[in-house]
Amino acid sequence: MSSPVASHRARPLRVLGTGVAVSGEAVTSDALDARLGLPAGTIEERTGVRRRFVERRPAAVPGAEAARMALQTAGLTLDDIDCLVAASGTPDQAMPSNAALLHHELGLSARGIPAFDIGASCLGFLMALDVVSSLLASGRYRRVLIVASDVASCGLDWSRLESSGIFGDGAAAAVVDAGDGLTAAAGGGILAASFLTLSDGAHACEIPGGGSRHHPSRIDQPFPPLAQFHMDGPVIFRLAGERLADFVDGLLAQAGVTLADLELVVPHQASGHALAFMRRRLRLRTEQVVDIFAERGNQVGASLPTALHEAITSGRLRRGGTALLIGTGAGVQMGGIVLRH
Amino acid sequence: MSSPVASHRARPLRVLGTGVAVSGEAVTSDALDARLGLPAGTIEERTGVRRRFVERRPAAVPGAEAARMALQTAGLTLDDIDCLVAASGTPDQAMPSNAALLHHELGLSARGIPAFDIGASCLGFLMALDVVSSLLASGRYRRVLIVASDVASCGLDWSRLESSGIFGDGAAAAVVDAGDGLTAAAGGGILAASFLTLSDGAHACEIPGGGSRHHPSRIDQPFPPLAQFHMDGPVIFRLAGERLADFVDGLLAQAGVTLADLELVVPHQASGHALAFMRRRLRLRTEQVVDIFAERGNQVGASLPTALHEAITSGRLRRGGTALLIGTGAGVQMGGIVLRH
Repeated sequence: MSSPVASHRARPLRVLGTGVAVSGEAVTSDALDARLGLPAGTIEERTGVRRRFVERRPAAVPGAEAARMALQTAGLTLDDIDCLVAASGTPDQAMPSNAALLHHELGLSARGIPAFDIGASCLGFLMALDVVSSLLASGRYRRVLIVASDVASCGLDWSRLESSGIFGDGAAAAVVDAGDGLTAAAGGGILAASFLTLSDGAHACEIPGGGSRHHPSRIDQPFPPLAQFHMDGPVIFRLAGERLADFVDGLLAQAGVTLADLELVVPHQASGHALAFMRRRLRLRTEQVVDIFAERGNQVGASLPTALHEAITSGRLRRGGTALLIGTGAGVQMGGIVLRH
Repeated sequence: MSSPVASHRARPLRVLGTGVAVSGEAVTSDALDARLGLPAGTIEERTGVRRRFVERRPAAVPGAEAARMALQTAGLTLDDIDCLVAASGTPDQAMPSNAALLHHELGLSARGIPAFDIGASCLGFLMALDVVSSLLASGRYRRVLIVASDVASCGLDWSRLESSGIFGDGAAAAVVDAGDGLTAAAGGGILAASFLTLSDGAHACEIPGGGSRHHPSRIDQPFPPLAQFHMDGPVIFRLAGERLADFVDGLLAQAGVTLADLELVVPHQASGHALAFMRRRLRLRTEQVVDIFAERGNQVGASLPTALHEAITSGRLRRGGTALLIGTGAGVQMGGIVLRH
């Protein structure tokens, strides 16, 4: 799945700036309890989420806000990037691509820089970092803006609290380049990356509608339920959970680091249970893990880059520090990157 | 938008095999005329399409068929690839990614090789070729299977013949590697690639529904019309058509070739009008252009790789020959690759 020699795998990648959209309506679990006629404390207890944000604007709008913040943090403008990658976990529309809608929202049409989507459900941002590092390494692009923006709140089935109460809307972005051309180890970069697609679980976590498979013109059932998110937690856990420790061992070995070398673990904020399982299984100390789940919920594709933004802006991940970015997502996808920041 | 020196841009890429799905129901324009109560000959005259294929299975199924054919042509099996890229123009479902659904259909879960989507509407395959060549150049993957599969027939508004009569369903695939590590010029590869996103036309060619923007839970209008394809031809032409000649000039200059050096032009089969315009504007001879539009229609993301498959299997594009792969798509996307086969 990758080159045989670790040094061939490492690719320079410098995160120049990150941003998030602080937008939408903050909805506490207590407010949701009240709305659903549940005893106060029910949803927070069952999900671990204290509040989440609910966005009613198109996903491209907070996506553009996060993008502008990432550029500002980097001291750059839109004129400084030569490619836009949308790495959201869900479509804004079935057509055109999320990237084109975001490009439009950012007002990039006059310059016309290329824009495309990289899709890997909740791990889109992680996959995009990996792919973009190769684009930079080959000289194809020089500075790339990666944006993930998801509005999950529209498609939740509130009769299933465990799979609806965990989600929140959000957007996050990062602008990256290849640094000064030094090696990944010296100047920052991807020391190792690994992804697995465990598609026996392709339908264990899904939104059936939205595309051609269950198109309104070809179904003999109401469409709205098909536009809702469904999850079979035990199947996902069986496929991915059992592999986690070996997967991380292999990834760290590829990178030539140990868990003790990591300044921080930046996980996809899948669920409270998933985060607790990962901490336990990998024997991580609480302070080693970025956990923004209680205040944000699972923001689908925006979740991991929001956690990365938090890690960098809080100072928990410093220049030269090494982080493990890791997660699972619909597909079932499992992926990880060892990033020297 | 790319490195300043042409030789830095060229990246080895060898197309080892291509495949298409020959599946679905062949529907002639005469049969459509009869179904819609139109005088015989109406649709063929207005669209230039004599027949198209209508697929009623999920897009992943013909996608897997095309993938298997590409591997067989290359003398390879699924065990020989280390990454799967889905480059369809439309989603199969809103979640998971097309790539995960295709991975499942191909039975790849046990091996678990990485799978992700590259989305750029009708130009997804072209963008994927470009991106994958960087993944190969950096040593990230060794042999990649790229598949585009689109079922457009479900979302057509038959009250608008000009934008519905042109589409057909289809799937096409290619398996690629970096060749023997020689240069792109010697061993085959991408001599130049260029993409423009002209997002002032983001809504000129769209399927509004399918994602979070016009989600059934948040609209006050019927959903089915929102799941249909809409196109404003004049807007797209104004944005993209006028740029075509300059765009191609720049791309060929980057590649260091002229139109006369091209063995073949392999265009996205957007429409009869678009193909005629391109021939006229670039002063191409009929035999220089792969035109499968009358027998296939516009197969969205599968269109360009189907034309490439036709070019290679017919012997019109030979090893060592140079082709211009070019097209426009929703977004509005414009893109081209000069490929030394």
